[in-house]
Amino acid sequence: MKELVHDAARRARVAAATLALTTRAIKDSALQAMADALEAGSAEILAANAIDVDRACGDGTSEDVIDRLSLDEQRIRACADGLRDIAALPDPVGEVVRGSTLPNGLQLQQIRVPMGVIGMIYEGRPNVTADAAAICLKAGSAVLLRGSSSASASNTAIIDIMRAALAESGLPKDAIQQIPADDRSSATHLMQARGLVDLVIPRGGAGLIKAVVEESTVPVIETGVGNCHVYVDADADLDMALAIVLNAKTHRTSVCNAAESLLVHKSVADSFVPRVVTALQDLGVTVHGDPAFCAVNADVTPATEQDHAAEYLSLDISARVVESIDEAIAHIRTYSSGHTEAIVTSSLAASTRFTTGVDSAAVMINASTRFTDGGELGFGAEIGISTQKLHARGPMGLTEMTTTTYVVTGDGHTR
Amino acid sequence: MKELVHDAARRARVAAATLALTTRAIKDSALQAMADALEAGSAEILAANAIDVDRACGDGTSEDVIDRLSLDEQRIRACADGLRDIAALPDPVGEVVRGSTLPNGLQLQQIRVPMGVIGMIYEGRPNVTADAAAICLKAGSAVLLRGSSSASASNTAIIDIMRAALAESGLPKDAIQQIPADDRSSATHLMQARGLVDLVIPRGGAGLIKAVVEESTVPVIETGVGNCHVYVDADADLDMALAIVLNAKTHRTSVCNAAESLLVHKSVADSFVPRVVTALQDLGVTVHGDPAFCAVNADVTPATEQDHAAEYLSLDISARVVESIDEAIAHIRTYSSGHTEAIVTSSLAASTRFTTGVDSAAVMINASTRFTDGGELGFGAEIGISTQKLHARGPMGLTEMTTTTYVVTGDGHTR
Repeated sequence: MKELVHDAARRARVAAATLALTTRAIKDSALQAMADALEAGSAEILAANAIDVDRACGDGTSEDVIDRLSLDEQRIRACADGLRDIAALPDPVGEVVRGSTLPNGLQLQQIRVPMGVIGMIYEGRPNVTADAAAICLKAGSAVLLRGSSSASASNTAIIDIMRAALAESGLPKDAIQQIPADDRSSATHLMQARGLVDLVIPRGGAGLIKAVVEESTVPVIETGVGNCHVYVDADADLDMALAIVLNAKTHRTSVCNAAESLLVHKSVADSFVPRVVTALQDLGVTVHGDPAFCAVNADVTPATEQDHAAEYLSLDISARVVESIDEAIAHIRTYSSGHTEAIVTSSLAASTRFTTGVDSAAVMINASTRFTDGGELGFGAEIGISTQKLHARGPMGLTEMTTTTYVVTGDGHTR
Repeated sequence: MKELVHDAARRARVAAATLALTTRAIKDSALQAMADALEAGSAEILAANAIDVDRACGDGTSEDVIDRLSLDEQRIRACADGLRDIAALPDPVGEVVRGSTLPNGLQLQQIRVPMGVIGMIYEGRPNVTADAAAICLKAGSAVLLRGSSSASASNTAIIDIMRAALAESGLPKDAIQQIPADDRSSATHLMQARGLVDLVIPRGGAGLIKAVVEESTVPVIETGVGNCHVYVDADADLDMALAIVLNAKTHRTSVCNAAESLLVHKSVADSFVPRVVTALQDLGVTVHGDPAFCAVNADVTPATEQDHAAEYLSLDISARVVESIDEAIAHIRTYSSGHTEAIVTSSLAASTRFTTGVDSAAVMINASTRFTDGGELGFGAEIGISTQKLHARGPMGLTEMTTTTYVVTGDGHTR
């Protein structure tokens, strides 16, 4: 398996050298061709997806996970449109990030260049397959896609279609390759292919990400574990707070930017806690609360330490009344995964305190946590949401999939 | 030892929270105080340095390494001036990297924020101690300094002086801490303090950097291994080429941006090879060459595979005649550490081909490799030179020691 993965990486390096010299026009026409091919091949993709979904249902997989795995005509069309959107975005490669003439006459340019070979290790959603491949291609890098075995039929169908479209566009097929998912060791070999793979991005649950971070010798960007908090401040508009909590928790539960924890300032607890509990329960949410929340009704279950730390990805939320904004910040610094925190407040001082106090990739002021998303924030495309501080933090778009080089031009300059 | 290191990291986290809220004016006055204190304490530092140097001489340490270890009044003054230069630089924290109002009215800002706690694991040079501490402080992060045991007396003296100056400036002493170097395990515990340390930067020889990359569970930026090449093209001005080769090789041998390998296009080999060999030998350089170089005189030794791959850090250079620029590029892609490559040419096509063909942090066109340096390139300060592609590539200044956060302001926005 090691040789298989390393051989794929070597072929990807060769393809990457070609991609690095490929103009935007050619990359974009390949992306358009891939989009058309995905739509034209939707029957094939859906047939493969049905195999994956049937197997998952047979395994008693949860509804949320089935939702993430499932494709339909509309989702395939959305995928293809995503590829067209990426084609329409500016090419990050070649951008002069910084440039100046130094006092001694040396001309300095920092230029954006492709990363090289990117390994994606991800779970569930087969639409990630097309997205990730397209973003890496546009950013001039080859990609090795190691999806989950539960989506392997869907992924194979999508990747085969994209590779055929690449070849028809005159680009190397090996710029997009599938790493087999039937053996756990393939992921390990991918993340330890130091010198062959420039970057590994794990995208999935906390367990996957922890394993990659610990085992990888290739540089890693951690993504997407989201224990996101909504803090309802003393100065909150409570109607707004209710709408934001309900949206953040229930708009889509299986995503990393869904809220998992609710904090309410004690001064608004009496009026807000009963209201939010009832509204959440009406939408099918189980509230895991502190005594103040439990007092509302018997359907609220007592919150444990595990509840505060949990990324439920389901219709569950942990909830707590706090004495102050600083207690809210301290709670978040203790339990947050560093993804997104929201504050609902009309106080400028409170919003500033919250923004500088928490230490997360994104902070929402009077907005739902669901907006931490490359598409929503106008980045045009997203390969994942980084929850680490190195290289990229928050939604990662095309720019984050590149690196830079310094080009210094002299006229015989020596020191 | 683990508890000692982790306790230091925990104290550093507390200090970092204070630093994140500290204004530039206070950070700058602390840096000025540190600079003054280093100069005022030079006798103390030199006495400590003498202990380190004496021990190193007794151990039969090489001259280059002794040079890197040695301090004198002038180097201490340069250190202090470096701190003053850092104080004069703009504060990277708070910079709005990107900002816009989205179509739905959400206000998006990407803001530069401190990294948190940075671990430095480094060898030799005690001046790195003051530099690294100052850069981290200015960038709003606490730093844990794990220098080499060979410089431990010097480092202790420098760090004690800086901590006292910090405290006098009203900042937490624990923003700068020394990790004991007498036990190898302290470095391991530092690089595995995941969740307590945000970033580890190894700075030193290839062995150190490899160990950190392999053992660290904290994100790492690789620095500074430099097998730098000078390629003399068919269209080179040979006087310029000679000056650049001599400067790149002999200006200072113990640094990562010194040239270690010379490639000469065959069409200029007859005139250039004898000239460059003689000039290098006159300056005490041992040339390890291919048959064309060996033919010049008996003092040229045959180059082995190890020579091509070596970062000598001494008066040695490997040398080879190549058939074409593409062979030069292929040689560099095979043997380079990805630090700096130089081309000497008057051909625009050749310089473009070289720039896009090699895959290194910096490319010099008609300039010495010695210019890959934060100070030389006008960054004002440098904590090391990254040879990896993630986060930072090339000389790392203040900006590279920060991360960012997205702040999104709405008015009750939901999806």
